[in-house]
Amino acid sequence: MIKQRSLLGLKELDKEEIQSILDRAAFWEANSNKIEPVQQGKFVANMFFENSTRTRFSFEVAEKRLGTEVLNFSAAVSSVQKGESIYDTVRTLESMGIDAGVIRLKPIGVLAELAGKIKVPLINAGDGNNEHPTQALLDIYTMRKQFGELKGLTVSIVGDVMHSRVARSNLYALQKFGVNVRFCAPDNMRADGLNVDYVSIDEALQSDVIMMLRVQLERHENGMIKSAEDYRAQYGLTTERAKRIAPHAIIMHPAPINRNVEIDDELVEHPQSRIFPQMQNGVPIRMAVIERALG
Amino acid sequence: MIKQRSLLGLKELDKEEIQSILDRAAFWEANSNKIEPVQQGKFVANMFFENSTRTRFSFEVAEKRLGTEVLNFSAAVSSVQKGESIYDTVRTLESMGIDAGVIRLKPIGVLAELAGKIKVPLINAGDGNNEHPTQALLDIYTMRKQFGELKGLTVSIVGDVMHSRVARSNLYALQKFGVNVRFCAPDNMRADGLNVDYVSIDEALQSDVIMMLRVQLERHENGMIKSAEDYRAQYGLTTERAKRIAPHAIIMHPAPINRNVEIDDELVEHPQSRIFPQMQNGVPIRMAVIERALG
Amino acid sequence: MIKQRSLLGLKELDKEEIQSILDRAAFWEANSNKIEPVQQGKFVANMFFENSTRTRFSFEVAEKRLGTEVLNFSAAVSSVQKGESIYDTVRTLESMGIDAGVIRLKPIGVLAELAGKIKVPLINAGDGNNEHPTQALLDIYTMRKQFGELKGLTVSIVGDVMHSRVARSNLYALQKFGVNVRFCAPDNMRADGLNVDYVSIDEALQSDVIMMLRVQLERHENGMIKSAEDYRAQYGLTTERAKRIAPHAIIMHPAPINRNVEIDDELVEHPQSRIFPQMQNGVPIRMAVIERALG
Repeated sequence: MIKQRSLLGLKELDKEEIQSILDRAAFWEANSNKIEPVQQGKFVANMFFENSTRTRFSFEVAEKRLGTEVLNFSAAVSSVQKGESIYDTVRTLESMGIDAGVIRLKPIGVLAELAGKIKVPLINAGDGNNEHPTQALLDIYTMRKQFGELKGLTVSIVGDVMHSRVARSNLYALQKFGVNVRFCAPDNMRADGLNVDYVSIDEALQSDVIMMLRVQLERHENGMIKSAEDYRAQYGLTTERAKRIAPHAIIMHPAPINRNVEIDDELVEHPQSRIFPQMQNGVPIRMAVIERALG
Repeated sequence: MIKQRSLLGLKELDKEEIQSILDRAAFWEANSNKIEPVQQGKFVANMFFENSTRTRFSFEVAEKRLGTEVLNFSAAVSSVQKGESIYDTVRTLESMGIDAGVIRLKPIGVLAELAGKIKVPLINAGDGNNEHPTQALLDIYTMRKQFGELKGLTVSIVGDVMHSRVARSNLYALQKFGVNVRFCAPDNMRADGLNVDYVSIDEALQSDVIMMLRVQLERHENGMIKSAEDYRAQYGLTTERAKRIAPHAIIMHPAPINRNVEIDDELVEHPQSRIFPQMQNGVPIRMAVIERALG
Repeated sequence: MIKQRSLLGLKELDKEEIQSILDRAAFWEANSNKIEPVQQGKFVANMFFENSTRTRFSFEVAEKRLGTEVLNFSAAVSSVQKGESIYDTVRTLESMGIDAGVIRLKPIGVLAELAGKIKVPLINAGDGNNEHPTQALLDIYTMRKQFGELKGLTVSIVGDVMHSRVARSNLYALQKFGVNVRFCAPDNMRADGLNVDYVSIDEALQSDVIMMLRVQLERHENGMIKSAEDYRAQYGLTTERAKRIAPHAIIMHPAPINRNVEIDDELVEHPQSRIFPQMQNGVPIRMAVIERALG
């Protein structure tokens, strides 16, 4: 049986496979040596056709901790400007001998198409509005660390779920674990075709996990939301609202954050916030995912 | 006798020297370890004053396979914006202790001038319309792999030879090996002052190697070529034309490719195409060239 | 006693601490192995919220010579574009496990604020018009190499001292060593509130060290200086003026240079110029500073 080593999304990944990634991440988190070069002599290319700080560095740290060589491709400074297609770039790096590729790109459907044509394993670092599997894995890892058991938790994801690959990947994966996932969003930011209930912001506050999403108001000009202040008033996690969450509940956000829009500034490093711990957890998660890709 | 370790072009390099680079590349291609850190403790700077994806990554992979430390300089994100000259940048990196520099730049003549002032070996990664020696070396390596013997081959280079450093470097080197090189180009894309015959596209198809060049139509506004469609019709390697090449012939292109302009989309990975193998061959060629530079 | 391992500026650093950095740099300069991986397994992030070629590469070479892993963050290609704050970026990289951060940024006061919130050591690679401590350390190292003893030297810093963090860091540190520091600048480029005398350009030439600063005329539209030619005539180190400096005196410049504005082209590599040696000295200085930060 050939093990599938690419990671395109969590929708198609079974629970056991997800669990084994989480377990391996726990191993890496516990490892006292920062660098354990078990994958020395391998090349991993980070191919970002969309800007990124956090995700790209998280992968780079993970790769270097495993001892791989890292190639960083960023579309903004490359011959993509000369009209080179995404396929040609990936195929080029494959020809040069990379052992795995991490890829972020905008157009929907291109990643699946690529994975059919490229022989090296590909890791999805965010594709359009579709999936962002390593973000959801680190989110779930963060929840598991907090609560031990995922089954029975209530997780509310608040914000622009329509454009959120993070919301989709979390939804797909958490439901496999028996988590009660709910979305909370204004009408014009809702996603169609997903098996999920929508709740009010007040109901969302009554969850074990309140996950706030970054909002990009410029995408929603015709909606009922008129401004950042308006969004904050209706859907933001304000200091006032945060007082109403349960003492055991945690606040999450995939970042980057619009401070004082979807979440108030003083909540970002609140004792119940796990926002920076999420980033910390991203490194061992990505180590596990890259290791799985490299075999 | 001091061995010249810079690689500024193939025009001045003798046949034996070229052959020894090709032979060393064959050694590296055959080497089963991806990384053989024979040049550990050395620093190589890739200094690209012109955008590049393919060439820059090819050098970076080669350098890392040899175990060197890599510094990537790209003009677009640097103080060249503040008017710093190319010379000052190269001299700066030399002062910091690099052992060799890979350089791509636009202005003709600057590279030769630099090489006279800079003490570390310099490798030309493309200078204006002048030379692109490592590209031609990998092209010739690809031909040698295919045909065993270079002498007596017919190679037709089709397209904008006027602006092509790839065409010039191939012409200079292939003629040393007794290859019959011909150019095929519309009148306004021809290069003056070169010892080469021009043939029609139909004659070009009757070659052992048909090497297509990237065309940049924006450079030729006053020519007889009116559009990409027009160029394709007159000089493109179309699927129809590809049927007329010999069964033993191969198709080459230095990339990046304008699909469906100079070459039809379905020919890029045609069984007779060597376009992605060319990229693969670039890595051992550049390992050999860097090793030669580092001594 | 907890040793302060950040390097935010030289104003607050005592003479002994500066001396110990200079001594350690001398050790690294004398070390015959280019790479001495005494800091292997550590991660250093270079976080440049302002463009840089020289300083960034100097740090990168220093880090790699010490064997650390290097992460290069440049604001121009990151989610700072999406409004992410400097704090969030630094905190993100800290969360991912960096052991030290090198940082360049424009807004005054932000670095001190960051240092209060971030737990990993931070090294100032230039903050606004405030300080640029590693540049001044390498300048002082260059003077000490030249003259053996710093005490009693006369150093004149010529140019736009108002906007110069290099001038401030040099002033603060050199005065601790009993150096006679003088500034020379047109009225509209003078800095207030510093304990320093202003001299004419003719007096400045009568120094042991003549340190020229980069001038950015676009910052001074309303001054008496009308043009680059005018600036050169009044404050530039011209070939003619250079004839009047003492035979034992040296010329310095932090670079990048405006050739033929603040210094004539032919003086840049004059026998009495230490401009490229300064860059060379930057590497061991930064090795010493990073080592101190990593502990």
